[in-house]
Amino acid sequence: MVNTSNFPLVLDHIGMAVTDIDVATRMYEKLLLAKIIHDEVVTSQGVMVRFLSFADQKIELLQAINDDSPVAKFIAKRGPGIHHLAFKTSDIYEEMQRLRGKGFQILQDEPIKGAYNKLIFFIHPKSMGGTLVEVCQPLAT
Amino acid sequence: MVNTSNFPLVLDHIGMAVTDIDVATRMYEKLLLAKIIHDEVVTSQGVMVRFLSFADQKIELLQAINDDSPVAKFIAKRGPGIHHLAFKTSDIYEEMQRLRGKGFQILQDEPIKGAYNKLIFFIHPKSMGGTLVEVCQPLAT
Repeated sequence: MVNTSNFPLVLDHIGMAVTDIDVATRMYEKLLLAKIIHDEVVTSQGVMVRFLSFADQKIELLQAINDDSPVAKFIAKRGPGIHHLAFKTSDIYEEMQRLRGKGFQILQDEPIKGAYNKLIFFIHPKSMGGTLVEVCQPLAT
Repeated sequence: MVNTSNFPLVLDHIGMAVTDIDVATRMYEKLLLAKIIHDEVVTSQGVMVRFLSFADQKIELLQAINDDSPVAKFIAKRGPGIHHLAFKTSDIYEEMQRLRGKGFQILQDEPIKGAYNKLIFFIHPKSMGGTLVEVCQPLAT
């Protein structure tokens, strides 16, 4: 096994922009034998999200609940499909500082509350070769 | 730890369409402390590919070497960014049959030789909600 603690970031989940969260769920159930582990509506982002678990990874399905949602705009521009990659850190404040220092453009001034009880921030796709990257840290419960 | 052998597919790598493989490499070195583990030119697909390793995952960078390359067409249509997800199986022929039986549209009649000494096939994005999915099995060396 690789010692992942030697790395600042570990893959946490892959985010998918979908037009119908239930149709997408059935697709990933068939492909990966994935199971639903969490459902949530994030009103501030205009999305309903669903986390699916398979093997040792997770997929987040995102369906827009209004036309102003960033996910609605993403789908209008690029079509449904892979929306973002999320990487987990053990210290999101330190990681925000490290990535700013490396020249990455961070979309938030401070980490914000994201879905599934996590602190998150995003790196602008313009400073990530077109890929939207989320950095996250689970909050203790 | 999750017993991944209970699942037909495990995430193998995330494929990124890039315009400059060296610029993208430096970006993922900074973001993830990723290391180069393999370089290859796949003439039949019109791409040079580079595999990067970080924590317990891999990223495949794909740069077109001619305008007919599927990667060139992808970038012309959608811009650079996440290109495909690749999942590993322990029996690619059985997995092809399983996924066909579930109604997924497979792009190849039989598995083909892919980069980094693997047998691969692709699922059409039209039957995967817009996501290009690769299924792969490493060949013994």
